Amino acid sequence: MGELYRKLEEYSRSDYYPFHMPGHKRRRESAAGSLGKIYGLDITEIDGFDNLHQAGGILAQSQERAAGIYGADRTWFLVNGSTCGILSAVMAAAGRGDRLLMARNSHRSVYHGAYLRELETSYLYPPVLEEWGIAGSIEPREVERALKEQPEIAAVLVTSPTYEGILSDVAEIAYITHSYGRPLIVDEAHGAHFGLHPDYPPSSVSLGADVVIHSLHKTLPSMTQTALLHLKGNLIPAERLERYLRIFQTSSPSYVLMASIDACMDMVEREGERRLESLLQIRRSLAERLKGSRHLRLLDGQTGRPGGGTVFRMDPCKLVIAGQGCGMTGVRIYDALRKRYHLQPEMAAEGYALAILTMMDTKEGVDRLAEALLEMDREIREDAGMAAGRRKSGELQKSLKKAPGKPEESVMTIARAYTEEQAQVPVGECGGRIAAEFINLYPPGIPLAVPGERLSNDLINSLVHNRGMGLNVQGIEKNGCIRVVKE
Amino acid sequence: MGELYRKLEEYSRSDYYPFHMPGHKRRRESAAGSLGKIYGLDITEIDGFDNLHQAGGILAQSQERAAGIYGADRTWFLVNGSTCGILSAVMAAAGRGDRLLMARNSHRSVYHGAYLRELETSYLYPPVLEEWGIAGSIEPREVERALKEQPEIAAVLVTSPTYEGILSDVAEIAYITHSYGRPLIVDEAHGAHFGLHPDYPPSSVSLGADVVIHSLHKTLPSMTQTALLHLKGNLIPAERLERYLRIFQTSSPSYVLMASIDACMDMVEREGERRLESLLQIRRSLAERLKGSRHLRLLDGQTGRPGGGTVFRMDPCKLVIAGQGCGMTGVRIYDALRKRYHLQPEMAAEGYALAILTMMDTKEGVDRLAEALLEMDREIREDAGMAAGRRKSGELQKSLKKAPGKPEESVMTIARAYTEEQAQVPVGECGGRIAAEFINLYPPGIPLAVPGERLSNDLINSLVHNRGMGLNVQGIEKNGCIRVVKE
Repeated sequence: MGELYRKLEEYSRSDYYPFHMPGHKRRRESAAGSLGKIYGLDITEIDGFDNLHQAGGILAQSQERAAGIYGADRTWFLVNGSTCGILSAVMAAAGRGDRLLMARNSHRSVYHGAYLRELETSYLYPPVLEEWGIAGSIEPREVERALKEQPEIAAVLVTSPTYEGILSDVAEIAYITHSYGRPLIVDEAHGAHFGLHPDYPPSSVSLGADVVIHSLHKTLPSMTQTALLHLKGNLIPAERLERYLRIFQTSSPSYVLMASIDACMDMVEREGERRLESLLQIRRSLAERLKGSRHLRLLDGQTGRPGGGTVFRMDPCKLVIAGQGCGMTGVRIYDALRKRYHLQPEMAAEGYALAILTMMDTKEGVDRLAEALLEMDREIREDAGMAAGRRKSGELQKSLKKAPGKPEESVMTIARAYTEEQAQVPVGECGGRIAAEFINLYPPGIPLAVPGERLSNDLINSLVHNRGMGLNVQGIEKNGCIRVVKE
Repeated sequence: MGELYRKLEEYSRSDYYPFHMPGHKRRRESAAGSLGKIYGLDITEIDGFDNLHQAGGILAQSQERAAGIYGADRTWFLVNGSTCGILSAVMAAAGRGDRLLMARNSHRSVYHGAYLRELETSYLYPPVLEEWGIAGSIEPREVERALKEQPEIAAVLVTSPTYEGILSDVAEIAYITHSYGRPLIVDEAHGAHFGLHPDYPPSSVSLGADVVIHSLHKTLPSMTQTALLHLKGNLIPAERLERYLRIFQTSSPSYVLMASIDACMDMVEREGERRLESLLQIRRSLAERLKGSRHLRLLDGQTGRPGGGTVFRMDPCKLVIAGQGCGMTGVRIYDALRKRYHLQPEMAAEGYALAILTMMDTKEGVDRLAEALLEMDREIREDAGMAAGRRKSGELQKSLKKAPGKPEESVMTIARAYTEEQAQVPVGECGGRIAAEFINLYPPGIPLAVPGERLSNDLINSLVHNRGMGLNVQGIEKNGCIRVVKE
């Protein structure tokens, strides 16, 4: 259950009366049902419960255990999500005005770190798996080329695995980065379950990365907004990371969230390998059953590009489901699963729906998914499907090639674009203007345009199109305008 | 109970199976007891549950209700504490390199905002109530003087009430600030219960402040790490605030924390006035009973400086308890309440212990406090007390005059001090060196030294002394060193 939870439970049963924060005074009557019950555990930094920002007691021990599980030199608990870990890592790894080499398909928070640090940015553009509309692995040779050509690069940051579960060769990228004496930060937010079972990918912590960020809530049994920051070696000093964690995290961290992290590490340590083994069986049986499907397919690292091409490694816990050539868009698959079968996927992109498996899934739940997909598959009318599919497929290619793929022209740094005067311009008229805000499809929250970049007509067309498809485009305001730099 | 909680509860009882984050899959087995139960409500941004970073549904409505309660034009829910609200307000109110006029007794996050924005800072030094060792009200005429002398000041920020409950004249400060065309930010983290009952102080939202930050967990029944950001007028644009909130808050905000905010607003709206009325009765009866105490006293705005001096207004919910002239330090009062009576105060300073009352307190709990204090008071041996008191009192004066009071010499900006090379020097040898880190007493987390300031011998003596008293001095490392700029 986790030592922190045990102590909080014990304390909540004591006769100590709180003349301190939080204001609910640990009373269940403060809120209804299970919400109110959790208030009993929601304390502040009272004696015996340590202080996250200066840990020396139970939180320090709990963090040390987490470091041991992943093989890190130091591990910090995060209560403001991976977001604050990424911001802190970027701020600690690069000095003001330095250059950061970063994957273009980075989470928004990496761009935010670059903005706050006023960094110059160089991008690693992953190839796009056009058949699926998904960003592929970062090529180590691209990292090498960039480091060779731009010796002013201070640090490298890549995301592995991606939201869709695609891994990059972190070991090779770390080797190259270190051969240039630079630190490597890996946003492994989606891979907190790596390295805990021999048949899953290893964690970047063991592959040579200097700093690794894990979202716990994404793939492990922990509450939303919980995460870990791991440090190895001394290319990035621990005290610099801590300085920024103190800046980007609340000075009143939630003991409920911290107890959740501790309980999660406890479960991982005690039952992680067994549960991951059982999940692997469930995953294999799902793949086996879906072999009978004619149209609906799962993305698979070995067969990602039919007709050959890059073979990549994938997180077995990400199910990227597409109905290629049959007219089933990701949104239609998503809607059908949700409305008809009460199976809630993680998200819908135009080309696919994404479902996430974790060690807390049940055989029954995954069987429901298999049956639903097989039933949907049987109902797809072959000819209508094929005709619509051809049409759709063309559109798909057009809009998705843009996704995180082709460089937009960078006119000024993010920090500069933010300080210039801005104008609101209707999206359709934005071709050729300079973006003053990020434009994202969320999920997965990868910027399509970054402040300071000139918006191409292709991108604008794709935005209008995606918006028409009902996808959630962030950066287009309610009035249908985009913020651009006044020229 | 709050509409968001109701909907989450309803959803958790449905047969929807989650193929999405969080990884605990809403299963209670993910953690023990009440911790596991709350996982049933811990979802991600699935359909029908809106998105905090682009609110348009249930979260937008809930935020609008909160705005209505406080009379703000717009209100945002914060899940990374007041910290992220302060950072966002500072970043939105001042441009890079501008000058911020800020209270010296500001929370660390204000300094962090100034650092991130590379601001020049001018300080408003509150007078110190020497008898108590507490920072008093910010003088409006000091604000006027600063704005007159330094026309380059871009924005003003004050904290009211303070951690100890002392209010400043926000209406007057807002009037002055606006007459210079500048925005006023009020860190009202400790005053979320203001303006909800006619006999409590009004909220700064109604007194003319442009941005007000409320910690909900400090004085209202809401979970730790929850807060509100309020906006009035247009001196600070809403879209700039939103930009920074997106930067400083996790992209995966916790629905449990948001449900807690919503439930809190619901309780405030339905029962707030009645509960605050009843708290006022309890508070009055406590004061009445403590009139029989010979040594232990409560700080009171009307009698704050015996023998005359500034009269200030105080939050009735803060109990500042001191045993002046009887040798009872704040730490001794704190320890006695905690160990002997199982009454856990909020904190101990050298000169006083602090207890917090909220609308969730019970008459029984406050009666226990009154009896404990009266018993402690009776047991103080008059003569021994007086003798020790005289000695203690001298020490007290010496160390506390320094507290947030007297200016340290500023040699460089915070941002500059952070980029210079650093050295670790034993605390006793730091006199005359330039600080490279914040030095705080936590609580209340008011910097005693700011990076870029020269450490005076007086301050160093006071640090050594406070540390010897067992107080929690942040900024002194485990090895007894302070980080200073290499010279």
